[in-house]
Parts: sequence; C-alpha cells; structure tokens
Amino acid sequence: MDPMLSSIHSPDDIRHLNVAQSRELAKEIRRFLVRHVSQTGGHLSSNLGVVELTIALHQSFNAPKDKIVFDVGHQAYVHKMLTGRMDRFNTLRQKDGLAGFPKSEESPYDVFDTGHASTSISAAYGLAVARDLKGEDYEVVAVIGDGSMTGGMAYEAMNNAGRDKTRFIVVLNDNGMSIGHNVGSLANHLGWLRTRSGYLNSKKRVRQAVAQHPVLKPIYDASRIVKNRVKYLMVKGILFEELGFTYLGPVDGHDIRAMREAFQQAKNLNEPVLVHVLTKKGKGYKPAEEHPTQFHGIGPFDIKSGEAKCAPKETYANVFGSVMSRMEKEDPNVVLITAAMKTGTGLDYFSLDSRRSFDVGIAEEHAVTFAAGLAKGGMKPYVAIYSSFLQRAYDQILHDVALQKLPVTFAIDHSGVVGEDGETHQGIFDFAYLSHIPGMVIMAPSSKEELEQMLELTRTLGKPAAIRYPKGAAESRPEIDAPIELGKGLIVRQTEGSGKKIALLSVGTCLAEALGAADLLSAEGYAVTVADARFVKPLDEELLKSLSQTHDLLMTLEDHVKTGGFGMMAESKLIEWESESPAFGLGEAPKFAKVKTISLPDAFLPQDERKHMLKTCGLDASSIALAARKALGDGGYNEK
Amino acid sequence: MDPMLSSIHSPDDIRHLNVAQSRELAKEIRRFLVRHVSQTGGHLSSNLGVVELTIALHQSFNAPKDKIVFDVGHQAYVHKMLTGRMDRFNTLRQKDGLAGFPKSEESPYDVFDTGHASTSISAAYGLAVARDLKGEDYEVVAVIGDGSMTGGMAYEAMNNAGRDKTRFIVVLNDNGMSIGHNVGSLANHLGWLRTRSGYLNSKKRVRQAVAQHPVLKPIYDASRIVKNRVKYLMVKGILFEELGFTYLGPVDGHDIRAMREAFQQAKNLNEPVLVHVLTKKGKGYKPAEEHPTQFHGIGPFDIKSGEAKCAPKETYANVFGSVMSRMEKEDPNVVLITAAMKTGTGLDYFSLDSRRSFDVGIAEEHAVTFAAGLAKGGMKPYVAIYSSFLQRAYDQILHDVALQKLPVTFAIDHSGVVGEDGETHQGIFDFAYLSHIPGMVIMAPSSKEELEQMLELTRTLGKPAAIRYPKGAAESRPEIDAPIELGKGLIVRQTEGSGKKIALLSVGTCLAEALGAADLLSAEGYAVTVADARFVKPLDEELLKSLSQTHDLLMTLEDHVKTGGFGMMAESKLIEWESESPAFGLGEAPKFAKVKTISLPDAFLPQDERKHMLKTCGLDASSIALAARKALGDGGYNEK
Repeated sequence: MDPMLSSIHSPDDIRHLNVAQSRELAKEIRRFLVRHVSQTGGHLSSNLGVVELTIALHQSFNAPKDKIVFDVGHQAYVHKMLTGRMDRFNTLRQKDGLAGFPKSEESPYDVFDTGHASTSISAAYGLAVARDLKGEDYEVVAVIGDGSMTGGMAYEAMNNAGRDKTRFIVVLNDNGMSIGHNVGSLANHLGWLRTRSGYLNSKKRVRQAVAQHPVLKPIYDASRIVKNRVKYLMVKGILFEELGFTYLGPVDGHDIRAMREAFQQAKNLNEPVLVHVLTKKGKGYKPAEEHPTQFHGIGPFDIKSGEAKCAPKETYANVFGSVMSRMEKEDPNVVLITAAMKTGTGLDYFSLDSRRSFDVGIAEEHAVTFAAGLAKGGMKPYVAIYSSFLQRAYDQILHDVALQKLPVTFAIDHSGVVGEDGETHQGIFDFAYLSHIPGMVIMAPSSKEELEQMLELTRTLGKPAAIRYPKGAAESRPEIDAPIELGKGLIVRQTEGSGKKIALLSVGTCLAEALGAADLLSAEGYAVTVADARFVKPLDEELLKSLSQTHDLLMTLEDHVKTGGFGMMAESKLIEWESESPAFGLGEAPKFAKVKTISLPDAFLPQDERKHMLKTCGLDASSIALAARKALGDGGYNEK
Repeated sequence: MDPMLSSIHSPDDIRHLNVAQSRELAKEIRRFLVRHVSQTGGHLSSNLGVVELTIALHQSFNAPKDKIVFDVGHQAYVHKMLTGRMDRFNTLRQKDGLAGFPKSEESPYDVFDTGHASTSISAAYGLAVARDLKGEDYEVVAVIGDGSMTGGMAYEAMNNAGRDKTRFIVVLNDNGMSIGHNVGSLANHLGWLRTRSGYLNSKKRVRQAVAQHPVLKPIYDASRIVKNRVKYLMVKGILFEELGFTYLGPVDGHDIRAMREAFQQAKNLNEPVLVHVLTKKGKGYKPAEEHPTQFHGIGPFDIKSGEAKCAPKETYANVFGSVMSRMEKEDPNVVLITAAMKTGTGLDYFSLDSRRSFDVGIAEEHAVTFAAGLAKGGMKPYVAIYSSFLQRAYDQILHDVALQKLPVTFAIDHSGVVGEDGETHQGIFDFAYLSHIPGMVIMAPSSKEELEQMLELTRTLGKPAAIRYPKGAAESRPEIDAPIELGKGLIVRQTEGSGKKIALLSVGTCLAEALGAADLLSAEGYAVTVADARFVKPLDEELLKSLSQTHDLLMTLEDHVKTGGFGMMAESKLIEWESESPAFGLGEAPKFAKVKTISLPDAFLPQDERKHMLKTCGLDASSIALAARKALGDGGYNEK
C-alpha cells in the first residue's frame, strides 16, 4: 500500500532521496497519518502540516547526533515515523504505547520531552552551549510553532541566546494559527512577512540603493552601529534580527528543495539563525484543511466524511462555556480570558461578547496578571486554562491575584488524570500548587449541576477562586440539589448497616466511584456515609469532624497526588484536633475515626485511558471498597 | 532644611511648579532619600535614578484618578514621598511601617502591588481594558525598568496589548543595568537607541529621502503594507513598534521639561505608546553612582563614605558563591545560572569562569529550561534564584527538569521568612511548590558547613535537587560533622531527663531555636532530643518512626506555611503507619508519639524584622518550649 514507507527504518533511509521521491514519500506519510489517527485519535492537523518540513529536517541534519528539539511536540508524529517507530503507530497514546509527544525514554531521536509550549529555544540553546563547552560538534535545532512563539519564555530565550552568537538554529513553523487562531502583534508581524515577499527580494538590492544615496550614504558610512542597522531597511525578520538572530525566509514549508537549501545556508552561518517556514495545517486531508482546529486533537473519526466516530457527550468544558455565555449576558462586569485554549475549555461553541472575551495566545502568565488588572478595574474575570498549563502562571496567581485578594476565578479544565496525553498533561498537581496560597477558594464539582452552582457562587464571592474539573463527559446529578455554600461539603448518601461505619469523603468527580464503593460495602453490611467535599479550601471542618467522630473509618478520595492535596490537609486537621484534645487522661478525649487517604502516587503518571489509570491507582469502586475493608482489618489483604 | 518638601502633601502640590522649581524639589528629594535610607536601609540607587521621572509623572498625570503602575516597585519611594507619605519614611520597611514596595492597602496612589518583576504591563493593560468596558475616562501608565523588560511576561503583555489599540502608556525607565547588569539582545537594542540619537533625528528626513529615490520609491508606493514598514528605515524603537506600540524617545530622564512634553504627546496619541526614558541609577549621590549594585538594596550606611554601618557577616549566599567558585574549578561540567541575582545569590564576590557562568537577566523561566538543556548536554547546572522569584519557574522545574530527571540543582536563597521586603518576597512557599514534584530532592541546611556538604552531594547525585536557605548570616556548626547522606536526618543532641520525652525535629535554620528550646525544656526536667531533618524530600522515615516511637511528643519545626510543608508530610506518614498497624485489637499496635507541627500561618506575612516575625509565629525558643508543654498538657495555657 505504501511502498516507500515500508523501507524506512531510520533517517538514513531517506537522506538519499531526491526531491521527487521525497514528495512521493510525503504522500505516503499523509495517507499513513490519516489512516492511523482516524483509528487511534491524536493530533492530526499539525502533523499533516509538517510532513515536508520533517522530511527536509531529517535529510538536512544527521539525527540523533544532531539534536532536533520539537516544541510542544504534538507535531512530532512524522518525526517518529521517520525514526524507526512506524510499526508502533497503532499503539499511539495508549497504555505502554507510543507517546503522543517526544519522549527521550522512548527514542534517542527524541532529544527533549516537550508537552508544554515555548520551551524548545531555551532547551536547544542549553544543548548548544553544552556542546561548545564540551568541545563537541553537532547541530542543534529547535522547531517551534508560531503559537508557541507568543509564549514569554521563547522571547526570554531568544533575547538571551541572541547575544552570544552560539551556533544553533530555530525553525519557526508558521501555520498562521497555532492551536486556535493567532493573536497579538507577533501574528501581524508574521503575517506581513508572509505577504511581503512579492515586493522585496534581497537585502543586497536595498543596501546598494542606500550606499549610493546622498542623504542615506553619509549616515551609512558614519558608524558601524548605523551600518548594522541599514540591514533593517525594509528587510525581513526585523523582530528576530533585533533579538540577535539572523533571519532566513520565509520558505515554503511544503517545498522540500527550498527548505533543504535554507537549512544548508543556516548551517553555514555558524551563529543563531531563525528559519521562517510557512506551512498549512491539515495539508493534504480536506476535512483537516477546512477545520484545522477540530482536527488539532481528535478522537477516532471516519476518513471519508471526517466525522468523529463517537458522538460527543456533554463535557464539563461545554457546561462551563454555556454558563459563561449566559453570565456574560446577565452581568456586564463578567469578562473571559483564555490562553490559546478557547476550544478545549468549551468557549468556542457559544456566542460570547467579543469585547469581553480575550484569547491572549500561549501566554498564561500574562493571562493571569491581565485578569488581575481587569479585576482591579472593577471587572469579574474568569480565566479558563488547563490544569497543567496553569502551572506556568503559579507565581502570578499567588503574587498578582491572591496577595491582593482580587476576585479572579480560575476555571481549570483537564484536571486530575488526563488520559492519553500522558505525563506532560496530567492535571494532578493543581491542589498542591493552589492549596497553600493564602485566601484561595478551591472547589471541585462532582457533576454538571455542581459546576453550574460553583460558577454562580463565584459571581458574588469577591475572592480569588479556582474550580477544577476533568477533561471529558460531565455526569448529571440533578438529585443532589443542595445549594452551594462557601466552605461546606455535603452528605450525599447515608446507609444504615449492622457493621462498622465507614465515611467516604470524596473530592470532585471521584464521587461516582465513591457511590459505587458504597454500594459494594453496604451490600456487605457496613453502614456507609458518602460525602461530597465540594471545597478543598476552605476545608469543611465541621463535616470532617462530625464524619470522623461518628464513623470507624474515614476515607478521603481524590484524583491528585497526596502531598499538598485534600487528604493530607484533612489528616493534618484531624491530628491538630487530637493534639488539642486533653492529653494523658485529663478529661475524656474525643474519639476520631481511623483515617485513610486514597490519592495518586508520587509519580508522573504515564499515558493510559483515564478510567483504567484511576483503577490502577486504586480509585475505582472495588479498589476503594477493598481498601476500606483492609483499613478496618476485615480481610481482603490478599485479594489484590 | 528642605523647604519645598515640607509643603508637599499630595501630587496637587507639585503640579504648579515650573521646571526650575521642580529641579530644586528634585535636589531636596535626593537629600531626603539619602538621609532616610542611610538610617533605615532600603533600595537607594533605583530611587535616586527616578526622582525627575517621578516628578514629571505626577505633574503630567492626575493620580489617583489616573493609574500609575510601578513595575517591581522598589523604584517607588519618590512616588510615596509625593503622595502624602513623607512623614512616615522613618518607618520604611519596618513592622507596621511604610512598605518598600507599592501596596494598594497603604494608599490609593498605589494601584497595584508589585514585588515581582515584569508584571506592570499586563496589569496596566487590564486596567485600561476595564476602563474602556466601563466607559470611564482616565490614563493608565506602566513604569517598567529595562531589566524587567527582559521578563517574558512583559513581552507577552506587549504582544497582546499592541494588537487592539487600547489607550495606555508604558514608560520604559532605562538605566542600562537593571538589578545587576543588563544582558541579552534587548540590552543591545536599547544601547543602540541610546547612542543613535546623534546620527539621526527624525523619521521625516528618512521618509523624504526614500520618497525621492528611484529604487526605493516604487517599493514605497507599491503597497500600504510596505509603506508602513518604511518608518523602520533606521528609525527608533523598531522592536517596540513591531510589537504594536508607538515609540517615543529616547528622552533624558533627568530633564523634567522633556519628559513632560513626551508624556503630553503620549496622552494625545490615544493608543498604546512606549516612552523610552534614560536615567542614571544612583544619580546625585556619588557612592551610589559609582556602585549602583551595592546601593540597589542596602542596610544602614554612613552618608559621607557610603560605607555600610554593620559589618557584613558571612551569609549563606557567600558560602554558596565560595563553594561554586571552587567546584567550577574542580569540575569542568559545573555551570552556573542566575537570573539577575548575581550579587544577591553571592556569585559576584568570587572569581567565576565566565564561559560557565550565565546571568540570563530577569528570565526565571528561561533560566530553568536553559539549565535543563545544559543538563541534557552533559553539564551539571546550578541555578541560583531567590525562593519567591523561583515561583515564576514552577512549571519549568516540574515539566522540563523533574519529568526528565535531569541533574539540575536549585540553590534557593531568600527562603523562609524574608524580613523587611515583606509579603511579596517571603520565601515561605518553596517546600509547597516543590515537595509534590515527583523525584525532587529537597534539602535545607542548618549551618554553613551543612550547605557546603549539600552542594557537594549534588555533584554526584544525578537528580533534580533543591537546597533552600535564608537571606542573611550563616551560622557555623563545625561540631555537627556527620556526613550528609541522601534522605537521612541527624540527631544533633540528646539529653536525659526524668520527665516526659520530647523530640524536636527541625528543618534548616530552625535548628538554632530548637536547640534553645531544648535548653529550656531540659532545665525543666524533660528528656529532649533535637534532630536536624536535613531532607524534606525524601523524608527520613526511619528517623521519623524511631523518634515517634521513643518519645511522648514529636514536634516538627519549619519556617514555611503548613500546607505542603515538612510537618504535614511527617504527619501524613505517621497516620499512614498508624492506619497500617493492626487495627481493633488484632495484635499489639505500635505506639506513636503525639505530634505537633510548628509552622507559619496560612497568610501572606507582612514586613518585619526576620527574628521578630519568627517569634510572632511561635518559632523562637521560648514559644517552642511553651508549645511543647502545652501539647503535653503540662500547663502554660495562659502564659501567652
């Protein structure tokens, strides 16, 4: 079916191909990508866009000796295909399978793990400096998208790397849209570079004109400083040249010959070079060309129609988008900020007031402090960012929002176990990076109705608040209709029983499994209480104390690492009460239940289907029931 | 002594001054600043540099209606003087006194709290957008130094704000050196702007020349896009104009008339404008002009000689610098990275190999991922950053260093209670933002010898590691000479006694107070064990268990908030052991001590002398002893 592909086992096998053969290879790669991703799901548009670019890179550079660092590496599928991993593509993003991002443990060709944006230039510059210090000789290349280029650390890196003339190459893969659509002045700058090539074609022509001119020539001659500036006379890449990089381009990112030439030129320059490559997202597969955002990250789909195979369920993101769309209409002070996650956080599907909805691009730090400024100005900002990406703005949440007690609400999507995206995208640290921040209110809904209520609460709360919920389908629990109250959890179910008494205190969407565990334990005669914590901070101390004092065992449940999480805070509270109670026989000490926290291990969790990973970590109904029996000394030690 | 100053109670009192009077005022302000800071200590150089700038700002804008946001506000003293706080300057940076940074709780003239760099443009843009949404009418001004401009979020903000033409003004206070010295391409760009004014004086002249030229004119005419580019023909502020801002300047930052004119022009433009102002750090006080870095933040000093009044003690920073200087010589793979904190982290006083020492400017995110790249390339990077500023790179530590298990060592200065810098600079969250990161090794030395040993350990550790220590003098404890071993704490002292048994498990420099408390308690007959935890992660479980099983009370001590800190992790471990022990009478359950954690409250701690703040939080010897007695039910309840 794909005659060329089957003969490719490493980049060595494509270096000898001529341009025509390379084009043929590109076709086969596209067919392969569409075929496989339609079955496994994954990132399609960006990979279809970089087929020729990746071929040209591997023909021009000698990996793995030369180091190619892919920024936010969902554009690395073609790279993986060309570096000996084609036969594992049916395992993409599955347990123990091929990772959806570059992963150094997986292959020596994957130089640096990249799941968060804008890191590649810093990492590549570090590699280049290390190479020079060690007296080694290899090329270092960072491949970064125009979206990632809006991230502040990319600028920090260019600013720093541009000064010392260390040899390395940045390839700017410019598809003019990044994850959503491009925003900001950089996009304008790139847009101009894209369109300008018709008007001007060389620095030389302009320099000659200047050198012959009566007014400009004396200036040109006057000083070396000015002379260096002359190159900016309407020439290309001003911004990048100003940051110390030599700019080459723009180059057609689907023209393999042109890219090979540009890369060769870049190598010859022996200094920091930026090669500007223009690509088209989704290239070669019509549905993806027409709807690149939809095919950015996608589940299994029908190749012919491009339609998703699984009917989309109502997700927490949809619920958030729908509530926001309504709240924006009802309250003129509500504003919405996201950082290149408009679709992923559910905002794309609703009509929003464009004056009050801001997509700031891949710029989480700015997003949060911009929101703080808006709050200072009297608005009620809602910031929608994924859990693992909000890590980027930890300092801004603490220093710019919480310190000033500003009423900014963080809508944290992709929280908890994230599934197929793996290590880099796990949202399992958010309680930990938020719970120690003074004055933060932290909530986790167990259902779509609870998310709606929590969002409503934040409208009048007047404090920094965070609501975290997972990627994916939202359960509906209309029966739990007790209104939300700040810092109050809720007893959801209580069953009588002749046996020991167990309280399951669950955080967020763990409630489903808690109820399942309660069914199992009730059937065995235990008296089980299931409570929904609702708030991680402030902790519902009254509920915690009463559950602890009226049960034999109190179990906390959360899909989050233990340290800094809910269970650890609950444990600490219980210890505090115990330590405050009269000691050593002075008066009667109150009785507290035995405590057992169920949380995620102290580890970076690999890719795996979310439900399966939760089971592996003991967060499914039967594992919870087993842990309860075990903690009560009721057997079950050897059942697992 | 200062006739003009005494008549100034608000900006209204300086608006009518003519330029000559304003200059006279500037002189009085300088005398006042030198006089006061020589007594209280504080930030001197930067404030001496912005005297005329601040006068011109308050003459040109109508605060507090107009909003002036000072970036990393140690340049806000003059602003405070002119906004009714002159009479409180003797309380500067003291408990309940005037804050060293803008603080919105302190005055309506302080718009936004700014203790971390590069936030002002995001905040000001937020305020400007809020103003327009609310249909209000006021000016918004961000005042940002050239150092802060190297921070990625300043670029994110400019990129975002430049696109939509919202009216606001960025004043770039360019003293050409930031905290240490300036680094990177931006500095080159600014340097060129500073020197270029002699060669060129108007865009107009250049535009005319082009419009008459046979080669350039057709290009100029061909398209509006190209036409807009013509303004970049060797004109000013390319980088900022490229980001969507109109550039005005450079303006002499000690020429009040010129600045007033520039600010008026900026107001008239009604769009994002950047005014580039050139100032001299330390201006008007010779010792500060000559040694601006030394006078950046300084203790009390002698006005005549400029010499510090307190003899400098050996600090942890000095110890770090000294060890690094040696290790760099011994090990060719050791590299050092800091982010504009070379002096503050002790690196300035030692001879370092310039090829292997990197000051990346105010760019913590890049600093960390650059270090990760260096580690990938085979080096052993040491990253020296203050605790509160390392917050900026939390995601990079987690995603770029820890996920890949790279051997990067973080030397975290200014940890724990920081003292006079107050809320924004407290280093009291670092265990919390590090302890949940899988695989991180976290250490805290109790003495200079321990810091030396810990640094030595990291050389062969091969893992991500953090060592945190406070600002200020390092104690020497040559008697504690047990070698450091990964994950092992140390029993430092054990006294016999007829009374109950108390174990004090101390983290880092709390050891001094723990030993003091032990003296008090031993004198009362308690048997006291004092242990130095050394490691926060991995926790020394063996030590924890044995202390707990052989004492009546186990107290943990740390100058860190409770959540995510050492004490909470220790508590959780103890609960885990208890829950694992045979329950309900099956076998003999091991006995664990009562546990009491002493840590800092869940709050942003205000400025106060470090020692006093520790006492306020119960971390001094007598408070610790009291807490121990109380926990054991031995009275003392009413003593405090």
